[in-house]
Order: sequence, then C-alpha cells, then structure tokens
Amino acid sequence: MGQANYQQQVLGILGGGQLGRMLIQSAINYNLTVHIMDPDPEAPCKNLCRTFVQGDLKDYDTVYAFGKTCDVISIEIEHVNTAALYQLEQEGKKVFPQPRVIELIQDKRTQKQFYQDQGIPTAPFVLTENKADVARHLDFLPAVHKLGKEGYDGRGVQTIPDAGAIGRAFDAPGLLEKFVDFDKELAVIVARNEHGAVKTFPSVECAFHPVHNLVEFLFSPAEISPETDQKAQALALKVIEKLDMVGLLAVELFVTKSGEILVNEIAPRPHNSGHHTIEANFTSQFEQHLRAVMGMPLGDTGIRSGAAMVNLLGEAGYTGEALVEGLDEAIQEKGVYLHLYGKKLTKPFRKMGHVTVLEADTGRLREKAQRIKELIKIKA
Amino acid sequence: MGQANYQQQVLGILGGGQLGRMLIQSAINYNLTVHIMDPDPEAPCKNLCRTFVQGDLKDYDTVYAFGKTCDVISIEIEHVNTAALYQLEQEGKKVFPQPRVIELIQDKRTQKQFYQDQGIPTAPFVLTENKADVARHLDFLPAVHKLGKEGYDGRGVQTIPDAGAIGRAFDAPGLLEKFVDFDKELAVIVARNEHGAVKTFPSVECAFHPVHNLVEFLFSPAEISPETDQKAQALALKVIEKLDMVGLLAVELFVTKSGEILVNEIAPRPHNSGHHTIEANFTSQFEQHLRAVMGMPLGDTGIRSGAAMVNLLGEAGYTGEALVEGLDEAIQEKGVYLHLYGKKLTKPFRKMGHVTVLEADTGRLREKAQRIKELIKIKA
Repeated sequence: MGQANYQQQVLGILGGGQLGRMLIQSAINYNLTVHIMDPDPEAPCKNLCRTFVQGDLKDYDTVYAFGKTCDVISIEIEHVNTAALYQLEQEGKKVFPQPRVIELIQDKRTQKQFYQDQGIPTAPFVLTENKADVARHLDFLPAVHKLGKEGYDGRGVQTIPDAGAIGRAFDAPGLLEKFVDFDKELAVIVARNEHGAVKTFPSVECAFHPVHNLVEFLFSPAEISPETDQKAQALALKVIEKLDMVGLLAVELFVTKSGEILVNEIAPRPHNSGHHTIEANFTSQFEQHLRAVMGMPLGDTGIRSGAAMVNLLGEAGYTGEALVEGLDEAIQEKGVYLHLYGKKLTKPFRKMGHVTVLEADTGRLREKAQRIKELIKIKA
Repeated sequence: MGQANYQQQVLGILGGGQLGRMLIQSAINYNLTVHIMDPDPEAPCKNLCRTFVQGDLKDYDTVYAFGKTCDVISIEIEHVNTAALYQLEQEGKKVFPQPRVIELIQDKRTQKQFYQDQGIPTAPFVLTENKADVARHLDFLPAVHKLGKEGYDGRGVQTIPDAGAIGRAFDAPGLLEKFVDFDKELAVIVARNEHGAVKTFPSVECAFHPVHNLVEFLFSPAEISPETDQKAQALALKVIEKLDMVGLLAVELFVTKSGEILVNEIAPRPHNSGHHTIEANFTSQFEQHLRAVMGMPLGDTGIRSGAAMVNLLGEAGYTGEALVEGLDEAIQEKGVYLHLYGKKLTKPFRKMGHVTVLEADTGRLREKAQRIKELIKIKA
C-alpha cells in the first residue's frame, strides 16, 4: 500500500453555502486543503477554509483563475461557468463532476432528454419555449411546468393543475411534465470515483412542503419494500453509469401508485436528501463526495440508525437578523442534532439549517420529527 | 421557551491544537463565533475560525487582550496565564473552567493535595522539591515521579522502580507517587454547566504505550462490571462538584487489583480519552464542552456503538513533513474514522491524529483496532 498524498492536493469548491460548509467540516478530518469561491462575501463557508475567494461563479475569467490555483475542482451548486471548467479540464485539472455532466444537468430540458435517450424511466414531458407554448398543451394537464435553467431551492417549478392556472407558467424555455400521481417521493445518493468504484446509499423518503417545493421532512430508511429499495438503488446506479460521472449524485425519484419508479431530477453534488447521513450512516454524503472527487476508496453507506431530517426554513413573516427559538428545549432530547448554516439574515422559507433526529422506532421517529419542527423556529 | 442567543456570544479558546480543531468542527453546527489564540502561527486551528491570534498563552497582556475581545473564555490546554483570566473574570467575562480550577490543576502537587483534602481516593504520595529530595524517599519505591508543572502529552512523568533509577527523577518541584499495581486504567468525562446540570460519560478503558505514557488504544465501553462503571462515574461527579467547576473534566482513574478506584489525574477540557465520542456516543465530548461553557443544556452521553480509538503517533525514526501510509486500505473498512490534526511536521511520538473504530463485538473490536494501528503509519 503506497502513501496517500491527498493532503498535498488543493481541492477547490465552487459555491460556499451550507453544502460547502458541511464539506469543510468533513474535509478537516482528512486535513484536505480546501479553497472556496462564492459571490457572497458573507457566505456560510467564509472563515472556515484556507482560502475564500469572493467571485462570480458564472464568470469565465473568475472561475478559470480560481481553478488554476487548485488541483481538483468540484462544486456545491451547479450554476457555474462550465466553459471555464472545460478549459481547466483540458489543461489537466481534475474537474469532478465533469463539465459535460454539469452542463447537461444545468438545463432541465437536456436532463430530461438524457433520461429519454438512455431508457431511464421518467414522467412524460414536452419542451416549451414560452408561456404561449405552454397554453398549446392543455391536453398535458394536470402538469408541472419547470424552467429549463436557474431553478434552485424550490424556485423555477410551478404546478399547473388546469387551464385556469396557465398564467403561472414561465415565459422562458422550459418543460411541461405530466403530473405524476405518486405514492412516495424517494431519493437515492450514489457516488463514483475515477477508478470506477460505485456505491449507493439506501433509499430515503422525502416529504415536501405543500406550497414551496422544498423538502420539509426526510425519513431514512424509506418505508418501502426491499425490492423497491433495490430497484431505486439500481436506477440511481444506472444514471451515474450512463452519465459516466465522477462525484456524488443525488437522484430524486417518484414511486407511482402502480409501483413504477421514475427519475424526477438529479443533482451532481451533496443534496438536502442526504443531510441525515452525517449522523445516521457509516459514511456521510459529504465525506463520500470528498472521497469520490479525490479518488479515495468509497465509504460504507450502511445505516447506523433510523433517522429523520427536518429543514429549518425561515419562518413566514420574519425578515432580518436570524434568531433561533426553541433551541434549548430541542437539544435536551437524545439524538437531536442541530446544524445551523451560519446565515446572518433570515427571510421566509430560506434554508437556515436542519435538524437530524435519530430514533429506531418508525412511529416515534415521525412524532419526534414533528415535535422538533414545531419547537424550533427561525425568526428575526 | 425563550430565544437562545448563543450565536451572539464570542467564544474565545486559549490553545489552537487538535482539541481546539475538533471544538471548532462541533461549534460550526451551532454557528458559534470562535476566536482562537495559540503561539504557533501554523497551529491546527489556523484557517478554521473567524479570528486566529498568534500569541503567547502564558503572557499576561496577550491573554488579557485576547480575552477582552470575547464574551466566554475557555481553554483547550491548561498551561495558560491564570492571572489574566482572574482579571477577566473580575471584569465580568465568563471564564470556564474558572481560573481557580485551572490554577489548581496546573500544578500536580496542588491537584494531589486537593484529592487528599476532599477525601477523594488517590495513590499515596509525597511532595518532592528536587532530585536529592526524591532520593530521601527510597521507602516509597517503586514509584512514579511527576513534575509539578508543565507536564503534557507524556512529558513530565518518570517511573522509578528502584533506587538505581533515581537518576531519572526531575530536579524540580514534583511529587513521588506510590506505584499502583492496577488492573485497569479508566477515564470518565464529566461536564457541568453554570446552571449546575451535570452529566458523566460511561467509563472507557485506556491502554497506554509502555514507554511513552501516551494513550495507545482506548476502548468504549470499558470491560468492567456495571458496579465499577457506576463507582467510577460517581467519583468523577464528586471531583467536578468538589471543584465547583463549569466545563468539561476528564478524570483518569486506576482500578486496583483489589477493586478500589483511585483518581490518577484530571484535565479540565476535552481529552484524548473522549475522542471516540464523536462517532460512538449520542453527544461528543467537544459538543458537551461547548454546551457546558456556553450555558446550554447538556447532551445525552449514552453509547451509540462500541468503539476503539487508536492514536496516530509520529513513527519513530521519522522527522519532517508528514506522510500518511496505509490510509486507503484502512478507510475501506466499515466504521473506520480518520481524524488528522493538520500538523505539517511529524516527529517521533508526536500526536498526529487518531482513528475511531466502531464495532459492537468486543473481540472483533480489539482485533480491528490492532489491525488499523499496524496499517496506518505517519512517516516523513
């Protein structure tokens, strides 16, 4: 066995939000040198890394110059300048996920076409160019209209149950997707390193906020049959293999009422649906991301404990300097783990943190998660 | 339940080594603002905190000026200027552990006298002023000679089995302690906050390096009877209560062959014997330290999994820039957690990192810990 020299490689991460922050917490264990770039001078990663560069993630020169200071370049948000990443890749830098994959995923239209081309099951869809175009597909309703580019954290998605709601459609290139009458929404996180090693995490179950399209609760493991779990994991594996991608990929899935599994969306980075892995699995998604992009052996993804994850969203009606309510009461409970993201300002539905709750019994877990959600409020 | 404002308090920590580093990893979850001071401009905490101040921990003015920028002041090493801390305390700063406790523990002589005065069982001892003084107590041999002040990480302790070994004694104020023919060495970590809440971690078992007086392996839980565990926890509780201390206290204990439990030494901060708690207990010692000094409710200390901790010491014969050997093979195993401390230079027996190994079965755990120890080598 040779000597590992991960400590001599500079890892650059585009994006310095909460995902970058949790990547840094994990990177400290391996003594990795992490450089971060984010447009926000007060980004959650500021003060936690060797080098923090304030810069525009979409600007060619800025991304290129940042990448030149690194050996391995990765992302924690996919809205980045891929032209610069292609150039860096060509100059011999390791860019994981590959620019090709980031570019494909940046546009939900090419993402959908990729599923279709590769025989990956997904909901029927049509591409739309503008609002008028959406109105031409009334036969497709009820449907979900998705903006092709720039959607994030629940933005860029609108449900269009009937013709009367066409006004909600985006007046820009997007896609109209047939509404899936699903039984459950699952997510599977899968990792692959440059040596071709691949590992999936067990399926988790996501409960979305009815209005804001943000994960409200997550439960691990999902309450599904072992067969469904295996089918979901196999599908995630197929996606990352077909993408020929190196890094971590979150695959969001629908289980339809007839038991079919469809790919909804994918994200080539750590994801909200994997936050519980920090405490609940043998390897966290953040460590797995680092292992994958640095070419390390992948870690065991097994479950250590049943878990729920509760997103801490900025309370409606409060904008300003964040104050955490109910914290003392919550953290007195066994197996309650707070993660605040270091964002100074709260606004309605902004992701301010999350809480992981460990509990083996499924019924008690759901009850505990609900109680924590009612207890902790982010106000101003 | 009111609004917790821990985020508005600046926590200053004297010392920026590995203990400070792991405190920071934990503080990120609570979005605490941490200021660190350490004499080494390349200390392990450098680059990981809002404010890193290079400064002499023993200098009055330096410590005082640093403390003035903080609301709560704590330590990760006890060799600090207590006069400055007394002054800061008097000016209304929260200093936890209290200067009085740090001062008492800084000198192993006053530490021992404290046990005696408070009826806390400890090995018989005599105070010695110099080497000649040690030679006057041959009737006390076999014994251990301990330097009163400045001992750390195995330095400042010498075994003196017989008169022929008197030459090893320190020629400075110290104490000669009767050699304890112990069955096991245990450690119990206990925390207490300013509201008087107290919690102990279950007893762990330490295996020391035969020559260098450094923990080589640690096993949790200790293989002892429930009664012995309870006696050990009760004794740790008694020590922190008698000290009237706020913070985290590691209590090292001997279990004698006749089943008696004696206090060996104490440290008023996170301790090598609690590193496994990061993965193996519901609350880590680092989070518990933060909770205690910030006045938060204490966390549950229960065991999530049986665990071993292996210290990664600089390999004998290597001095220079550290290289980690055997890492890839080690981290392929399930439940193996690497923690490198970010020290650039290795030297023989320097604490460079640790590995926590999770495993329920006691036999397999010891075997796995031994294998990891043989696999990972810190060379140059």
